[in-house]
Amino acid sequence: MSVLALDLGGTKLATALFSKAGNILAKEIVVLGNRQGKEVGALVADQVKKFLAADIQPNDKISSIGICVPGISRQLSGTVWAPNISGWEDYPLLEEIKKISAGIPVLIDSDRACYMLGEKWQGNAQGCENAIFLAVGTGIGAGILVNGAIMRGAQDIAGAIGWMALQAPFEEKYIACGCFEHYASGEGIAKLAREFLEKDIGYSGILKSAPIGEIRAHHIFSAYDQNDSMAVAIFRQCIVYWGMAVANLVSLFNPEKILLGGGVFGPATRFIPDIQKEAAKWAQPISMQMVSLQAAALGPDAGLFGAGYLALQNR
Amino acid sequence: MSVLALDLGGTKLATALFSKAGNILAKEIVVLGNRQGKEVGALVADQVKKFLAADIQPNDKISSIGICVPGISRQLSGTVWAPNISGWEDYPLLEEIKKISAGIPVLIDSDRACYMLGEKWQGNAQGCENAIFLAVGTGIGAGILVNGAIMRGAQDIAGAIGWMALQAPFEEKYIACGCFEHYASGEGIAKLAREFLEKDIGYSGILKSAPIGEIRAHHIFSAYDQNDSMAVAIFRQCIVYWGMAVANLVSLFNPEKILLGGGVFGPATRFIPDIQKEAAKWAQPISMQMVSLQAAALGPDAGLFGAGYLALQNR
Repeated sequence: MSVLALDLGGTKLATALFSKAGNILAKEIVVLGNRQGKEVGALVADQVKKFLAADIQPNDKISSIGICVPGISRQLSGTVWAPNISGWEDYPLLEEIKKISAGIPVLIDSDRACYMLGEKWQGNAQGCENAIFLAVGTGIGAGILVNGAIMRGAQDIAGAIGWMALQAPFEEKYIACGCFEHYASGEGIAKLAREFLEKDIGYSGILKSAPIGEIRAHHIFSAYDQNDSMAVAIFRQCIVYWGMAVANLVSLFNPEKILLGGGVFGPATRFIPDIQKEAAKWAQPISMQMVSLQAAALGPDAGLFGAGYLALQNR
Repeated sequence: MSVLALDLGGTKLATALFSKAGNILAKEIVVLGNRQGKEVGALVADQVKKFLAADIQPNDKISSIGICVPGISRQLSGTVWAPNISGWEDYPLLEEIKKISAGIPVLIDSDRACYMLGEKWQGNAQGCENAIFLAVGTGIGAGILVNGAIMRGAQDIAGAIGWMALQAPFEEKYIACGCFEHYASGEGIAKLAREFLEKDIGYSGILKSAPIGEIRAHHIFSAYDQNDSMAVAIFRQCIVYWGMAVANLVSLFNPEKILLGGGVFGPATRFIPDIQKEAAKWAQPISMQMVSLQAAALGPDAGLFGAGYLALQNR
């Protein structure tokens, strides 16, 4: 038995054939390029058709298809909202793939849900029934496992932790993406540096070397490596917000594990002991003692593994 | 078919016989008085025995027993932690009640879980699969319904929202009970007033009339009714924290409903429109549009109804 997994990102589509045990039997990555709207849907469909036809495992047919999408998968309608693909406000992906999948079941879920499922299947949340994947990249989201199943909420938008309120009073700058995401996402870190650079006229450190508008999170990580005072101050503030968010997840969910992943963890993995220390100040003390806080294991493949595990649920 | 429900509080034990449809067929309240430890367990057992023997519905035997406890019900061990009953750090309540229940199934759950279940059965959350009961009394807790079932977490302590971090940096005064509970519980409101009174030498309003040490939340509600400036300032701050907490529940859980209950809601029900306005600033905007924020319907009986619904799960 094998399953087909597709991980659609904002810039590329990864497709893999998985064995039931989680081994990758075949894999291909296609860049989206200039594709938009229906063209992206057509690309997903083409990859499914190609892998179904390929007969890579002649005696072992594909029994199910899982798709990870960069946004929200509406379970009732089978449509997808993906903010970074134009024309995907309510895209009928399930219907399109079902047309060409020859009766093989198709499951679609959000990237944050798939990250969590991937880690449960082959990563650092194996054996967990109650765990959370805190995904910190350009934005921030959480994939939340409750009693072994993804928690979706009433409209499939549970886990929107980027909107977490962590600092009163409310400020206008939180409107676009939420308070937590404003301060502590990849984009937030860069914005913070730009703000600091505009204000701090006396600063003459490493971050001055790039034009303010071009500052990205990775610049601040390299400045931190060289002990730059502004980079240190920025991450000190991020650690507080990451710690508070972890604490709030611990107090509310009493999970076995919280995994930190996404593009920022990555390089921010070094801060996990500090984040744990900050979280321990705030969280329900018994839940905090019991939780394990770790980096995610699967890196950029978490979504692909998650799509594979998703497919396994309905083989 | 009828079920037996017991709601053990810090000061009294309520017992009721419910019809399957949720009608109370008989009810009794006993004050705990000076009872401690095993004496409280014996009282619960005595009430169960009495109602089982009473034969109130001769052709309609009691098919199940549900018990609401003021603390944590450990599902694996059947023991209870109840901070306000001395000797109940890990009390073997399930075992004791099973001894005298003549084979009738017994279920025990925390007060916050029972409040939520009671409102789902007979209150303002009927028909909901994803809803939250935010209980604001002396302390603060949340009963959280995910896909129709109470979310318990790995050690049965999910919903400890009193520990929610809402205001950086961390302060020593949050250690005892958590940041949110410090600011916005019944006890928190009173503490805030005492703090304000000690600092504000110029103030000569209504709250001056009681000795500082005796100020309780209800004093501040009556001062608010008379437009007292200090009471207005205190509730303005509470509304911000209640709003942020509601926002965080909305963004994380995407629930159909959030019910505000407990002793403080109650009198704070008048603030729900303001809380909704504050929450709307912070929360994930689509989830916020979809959620309904309401006062709980069952008042002090929510736990008893919850115990009844709990019993119905296992009849």
